[in-house]
Amino acid sequence: MSFTDQPSVPQRGRKPAAEGTSASSRPTMAMVAARVGVSKQTVHYALNSPDRLSPTTLRRVLKAVDELGYRPNQAARSLRTQSPRAVGFRLLPTTEGQSGGVWASFLYELSVAAHRADHAVYCHPAATDEEEIQVIQEIFSTNTVDCFVITFTQDHDPRITFLRERGIPFVSFGRPWGHPMSDTWWVDVDGAAGMEQAVDHLAERGHRRIAYLGLDGRNGFGDDRESGWRRAMRAHGFSTRDLAVRGSDEISTGRELAVRLLDRKQPPTGFVCVSDTIAIGALQACRERGLAVGRDVGVVGFDDSVGAHFVDPGLTSLAQPLELVARHTMRLLLDRLKDPDAKAEQVLLRPTLVVRESTVPR
Amino acid sequence: MSFTDQPSVPQRGRKPAAEGTSASSRPTMAMVAARVGVSKQTVHYALNSPDRLSPTTLRRVLKAVDELGYRPNQAARSLRTQSPRAVGFRLLPTTEGQSGGVWASFLYELSVAAHRADHAVYCHPAATDEEEIQVIQEIFSTNTVDCFVITFTQDHDPRITFLRERGIPFVSFGRPWGHPMSDTWWVDVDGAAGMEQAVDHLAERGHRRIAYLGLDGRNGFGDDRESGWRRAMRAHGFSTRDLAVRGSDEISTGRELAVRLLDRKQPPTGFVCVSDTIAIGALQACRERGLAVGRDVGVVGFDDSVGAHFVDPGLTSLAQPLELVARHTMRLLLDRLKDPDAKAEQVLLRPTLVVRESTVPR
Repeated sequence: MSFTDQPSVPQRGRKPAAEGTSASSRPTMAMVAARVGVSKQTVHYALNSPDRLSPTTLRRVLKAVDELGYRPNQAARSLRTQSPRAVGFRLLPTTEGQSGGVWASFLYELSVAAHRADHAVYCHPAATDEEEIQVIQEIFSTNTVDCFVITFTQDHDPRITFLRERGIPFVSFGRPWGHPMSDTWWVDVDGAAGMEQAVDHLAERGHRRIAYLGLDGRNGFGDDRESGWRRAMRAHGFSTRDLAVRGSDEISTGRELAVRLLDRKQPPTGFVCVSDTIAIGALQACRERGLAVGRDVGVVGFDDSVGAHFVDPGLTSLAQPLELVARHTMRLLLDRLKDPDAKAEQVLLRPTLVVRESTVPR
Repeated sequence: MSFTDQPSVPQRGRKPAAEGTSASSRPTMAMVAARVGVSKQTVHYALNSPDRLSPTTLRRVLKAVDELGYRPNQAARSLRTQSPRAVGFRLLPTTEGQSGGVWASFLYELSVAAHRADHAVYCHPAATDEEEIQVIQEIFSTNTVDCFVITFTQDHDPRITFLRERGIPFVSFGRPWGHPMSDTWWVDVDGAAGMEQAVDHLAERGHRRIAYLGLDGRNGFGDDRESGWRRAMRAHGFSTRDLAVRGSDEISTGRELAVRLLDRKQPPTGFVCVSDTIAIGALQACRERGLAVGRDVGVVGFDDSVGAHFVDPGLTSLAQPLELVARHTMRLLLDRLKDPDAKAEQVLLRPTLVVRESTVPR
């Protein structure tokens, strides 16, 4: 075993570091050892196997470590432990006209949780799931990260199939729709429970005809949210007949779906939407029809995204507890890394309804 | 010099990797060597000093590298070259009621540019500039990253002072306001030129009394944007008297500033705003006063953020060319890393006016 903290090979393709630059400002293990008058191995023990040293020596070494501000070289530590202590996270291109921002907020919270656990967050770009798989393969094979967090899980998500086949440690924010739920590690927010809260809230405000504006195509989280709306409507004794409509996740789609419903003989007065984006479109439609939003009609979105704050009237929406999601995600990752054979864990959290003027006027 | 690609020390605190899991699926340098029937050193030469090998050997080794999907261990490579090939980037907490989203879009573009240059982007959270300095110190001292990108530069930014003093390589997205402009490496977008475009656009639409809604306190980018408005107003022969007002970067502030101006005897009909957040507040004020936005009054924001897409009517705004900013940032970082003594480079880019209904009705 070697105790390198600064490699002895010369730097290639670089000029020697000038006085006061990075290389010279990093304290080394040798400097700590020299200060205390012990060997480098003793310093190594102090940091990695403290029980091998006498309490006095340990104290003296740690004092010097503190005073010099010495930190073990991350690359050297990675080599010794074979763990880069880094989490891979995919960045998405920003899509115009989508409410977005949730991944950015989640990434911030994840980086806080990772930092606390002495892990880095390594961000890689990928426009599609296929690209994400390629990039994961590439950076995992170079031992740059230990594990991955994947987000926006789709039905029969090819990323989950790939990661499971390769035995690459990961936790998904979002359930593995279409895969066995208990075989993978995931954290998710209970969309169905959120939709029940939304219906209860609108019912309390006097709404009886409450429509569901959802997503078309096969997708697990959309189906889950719709089932929550359906369950709550039944519990209140309201009819759901012809009140569920679906389209793509765009403002213009939300507007069109809502217009279609509002032009019926018996239009709904409540709109529970699968996303803020669709809800913002529904708000526009209501305003265009001259309805007093919050009074004549009530609109609820999902995500409590930036858009929900910006629209006027403000959009009532279901907020995902992103800090909590991030903390559980990191905890599960560490559990998974500690014991690859452990039984997969799952965490399902409840969203919170944030009430604004789209359901309760000022 | 050693040619380690898999460390020979046993893993500690982990069970041996099971068949088919991560550790066993990574091809090693030894596997490549065995396949070709050469030494590990030859494989190393093929990847790092190809001119040392005969063309035939080089071809054979690279073929095997390809076939096995072998990638040099990043940690081992970091140790040899002393370069982790990673860029540090600070994540900001999401602030409610701010238009935001620009840093997230920039981070995506930066990760694309970094990926192309075979660099990772390492994200660290920091709520304040002081916290960012602490975290930079910590992760730079552990050799986790080579360099940093800082954003949202303030007047006399303490991060720039710190990074310069320590000789830590960085490029800032945003000028080093209050520091000598030509001594540091930066990329920025020309806010003054953007404001000139905004005034020209409103003048073309018939507006003569065009107000500037800016930020209070000392801040270089705000002053810069205001100077652009002033210059363009002068060029058109319009008076600027009493037309510049300032406040905090919040929707409510934008609303209050605009209301104050609209309640004057001779209210402005154009509003050029330092940010989308303030512009969205101005939009609300105009609507509350019963003005037809886009016709009676014109409002222009800055950032072309998510909020600009979401408000109704859509907000005309100045878009920063974030992909280009990211590409130049990465180029400057690589130049700076290659030669720490090189003369600092600067890049100033022009924003683009994205016209929506807040200045031109549908």
